[in-house]
Amino acid sequence: MRTLIEKATILTMDNGGRLYLDGHVLFDENGILAVGSGACSQDADIRVDGRQGILMPGMINVHSHIPMIPFRSMGDDCPDRLRRFLFPLELEAMTPDLVYAAARYAACELLLSGVTSILDMYYFEDQVARACEETGIRAWVGETVIGQETCDSKTPYGGLPLCEELIRKWQGHKRIHPLVAPHATNTSSPQMLKAAYDLSVKYQVPYTLHVSEMDYEMSYFKEQYGKTPIAFLHDLGVLGERTIAVHCIHATGPDIRLLADTGTKVAHCIGANTKAGKGICPALDMRKAGVGIGIGSDGPSSGNTMDLFTQFKMIASFQKTKYRDRSAFPAREIVELGTMGGARVLGAEDEIGSIEIGKQADLVLLETKSVNMFPLYNPYSAIVYSANASNVDSVWVQGRQLVRGGRLMEMDLQTERDRLWAEMKEFRNCADKYQDML
Amino acid sequence: MRTLIEKATILTMDNGGRLYLDGHVLFDENGILAVGSGACSQDADIRVDGRQGILMPGMINVHSHIPMIPFRSMGDDCPDRLRRFLFPLELEAMTPDLVYAAARYAACELLLSGVTSILDMYYFEDQVARACEETGIRAWVGETVIGQETCDSKTPYGGLPLCEELIRKWQGHKRIHPLVAPHATNTSSPQMLKAAYDLSVKYQVPYTLHVSEMDYEMSYFKEQYGKTPIAFLHDLGVLGERTIAVHCIHATGPDIRLLADTGTKVAHCIGANTKAGKGICPALDMRKAGVGIGIGSDGPSSGNTMDLFTQFKMIASFQKTKYRDRSAFPAREIVELGTMGGARVLGAEDEIGSIEIGKQADLVLLETKSVNMFPLYNPYSAIVYSANASNVDSVWVQGRQLVRGGRLMEMDLQTERDRLWAEMKEFRNCADKYQDML
Repeated sequence: MRTLIEKATILTMDNGGRLYLDGHVLFDENGILAVGSGACSQDADIRVDGRQGILMPGMINVHSHIPMIPFRSMGDDCPDRLRRFLFPLELEAMTPDLVYAAARYAACELLLSGVTSILDMYYFEDQVARACEETGIRAWVGETVIGQETCDSKTPYGGLPLCEELIRKWQGHKRIHPLVAPHATNTSSPQMLKAAYDLSVKYQVPYTLHVSEMDYEMSYFKEQYGKTPIAFLHDLGVLGERTIAVHCIHATGPDIRLLADTGTKVAHCIGANTKAGKGICPALDMRKAGVGIGIGSDGPSSGNTMDLFTQFKMIASFQKTKYRDRSAFPAREIVELGTMGGARVLGAEDEIGSIEIGKQADLVLLETKSVNMFPLYNPYSAIVYSANASNVDSVWVQGRQLVRGGRLMEMDLQTERDRLWAEMKEFRNCADKYQDML
Repeated sequence: MRTLIEKATILTMDNGGRLYLDGHVLFDENGILAVGSGACSQDADIRVDGRQGILMPGMINVHSHIPMIPFRSMGDDCPDRLRRFLFPLELEAMTPDLVYAAARYAACELLLSGVTSILDMYYFEDQVARACEETGIRAWVGETVIGQETCDSKTPYGGLPLCEELIRKWQGHKRIHPLVAPHATNTSSPQMLKAAYDLSVKYQVPYTLHVSEMDYEMSYFKEQYGKTPIAFLHDLGVLGERTIAVHCIHATGPDIRLLADTGTKVAHCIGANTKAGKGICPALDMRKAGVGIGIGSDGPSSGNTMDLFTQFKMIASFQKTKYRDRSAFPAREIVELGTMGGARVLGAEDEIGSIEIGKQADLVLLETKSVNMFPLYNPYSAIVYSANASNVDSVWVQGRQLVRGGRLMEMDLQTERDRLWAEMKEFRNCADKYQDML
């Protein structure tokens, strides 16, 4: 089935920065067949009138914990909530069924906001993979490896064998890509960080972990090893092309050079970092040094929503303010981070991230009829500074349309919500114990 | 006509912080008649099922230039654009008809996003007043007084007599309140700043101007007077209860004490300030010192959208990050800034800003069925961290319903847009000259 989208402004996000003002894109489930301006000379089975909207590559969210939907709006302003109630509540109340129901709900939310690829790291990750497989989103899924008991493993580091199981089960799938996800620099031993890295090398999959995020993490590494967490990871031999370092808020100048020299990628999560008052990642310095950067929303308990529009505005405002320069990170570069930037972080730049012949048809059509989208001189500016998730009209993943007119085509949101709410019964009972912290 | 809204979570934003989980509000065009939990014992002509949404006071935006809609998404990342092309383009192409059409369009946008009160300062301000009067929004309107030729006055300071005309024409109107609006500390002479203040005293109206916003403004006052702009305004005798100082990004500790001691109010415009890389207003210090603060979006060319949801997230993230404290400015305090805080800034705290018997029925109903609003443990958190303008379901101003189901009831958006686009013809021709800066 060939689909032709016409009469839209096409932001290709290709290397030449091509933009077609009255353009078209022709595609099927195997990939993009044509892109250009004006009418398309080839036949199509389905024709979509773009109604002067903006057609852009599907957005790529390179860091989240999507099954954490049940935690959203809980204790948002509470200090050190990770150790005070997120970890305990997770341990008590997270079940495979809850992870599955929450991941399905999250996939709905991601698709409705124009995110077509998500990197997730959590527990019972096979359930996340299953939910993403069913809902049609493209996903990178990693079982969390951590040195403490978790909801899916009584033994510390039980995530490591689970990770290998996950890889064996899903490797080779067209849309679902397994990876290895140790939790953080300071929550796994050096030996286990290395063992996890070796696993990622063995199966040729990405490796992702939280890095240089916490003040106490920074002090610990300074006191224990006399170096930064990034220098420590480098000396441990786990930086490199397959490594996606999440946050890197406190990366120093030498750290940035290490990231650049090793080809290590960064998942920039500005919304979650600043909502927690942790600081501002020096993303502009990283970009200048040639570090590959993508955008993560972090989990719905950290960043609340998982759309990239919220992150776009935050990146612009925080980077411009950090560097006292209005022209720093212009809108087009920010849209690039959310598309091709993310694709490069995932090592999937030949497959997704831009609208080019031969790439997968992961596409988002933004409507420009809503009140906030007028006038429109610069589509990149409109996306970064004016748009929000409600401007997403249609979404395709791998050529399959999943959202039309701002609504899911294959799922019913209320049904997903009811299922999740029912599955949350025990979770809600447990959460009541922590009411004083909310 | 009495309207009863039932089955909603009522955030009263009153001094006691009262919240009714399954509440009701009864009102008519003269004010709120009842508020409480459960069913209402009184009769009503119209009944509205709140569908477990959140009913909050109409949001109050205390700083904007709403007729600048034609500039939106133009040169967003361009340094010093104010003097390089905004001022020149304004001078060349702004007409009364364009201001009127743009203000009508802006009023639609504000209402659709739940803003029921707007403070505007611009040119041809009588046209703004007329547009706001017709569209049903509540507005404070100030003609800009500036020491240069403008689109509505060949003579510098021509705004001052226009301001007096505006006051005489609109004073006493129920919804439209005139005020005096000198442009900024450094764009009017001290004599004219004082003359404008005297005018505001004569007519007992508010006085607003941009203060401590620009680096070059700060240097100028230091070199010229050896003091900060705020100390300068204080010595000039123009700080006080009626003064609304906009931005105050670079306010010092002593400045903050001056603001607090004189009862001067602050319009905090975090989105516009940081998008321009100018810096972060020390709003938390101001709050601790007892300075009254409201939230401004600034004009659609500075902040792009005029909703407060975007500002809420930015205030949380920037203040928490500036002070490295996740618990700084919890969500409820931020919602307070956007409601009662704004009302106090405008000196209208007896009339608007909270849901209390006797106050005007300026109300916003947020739906909680959309994907981003679930689950919902804390309604303040949901408003600040999860919601966006598309969650606004219904809006009432002075008891009159203007938005229902996310749509305008008395206006047609496409008609307003077509009218504005037609009126922008000459503006667009002029804008072409500045293409290289966009």
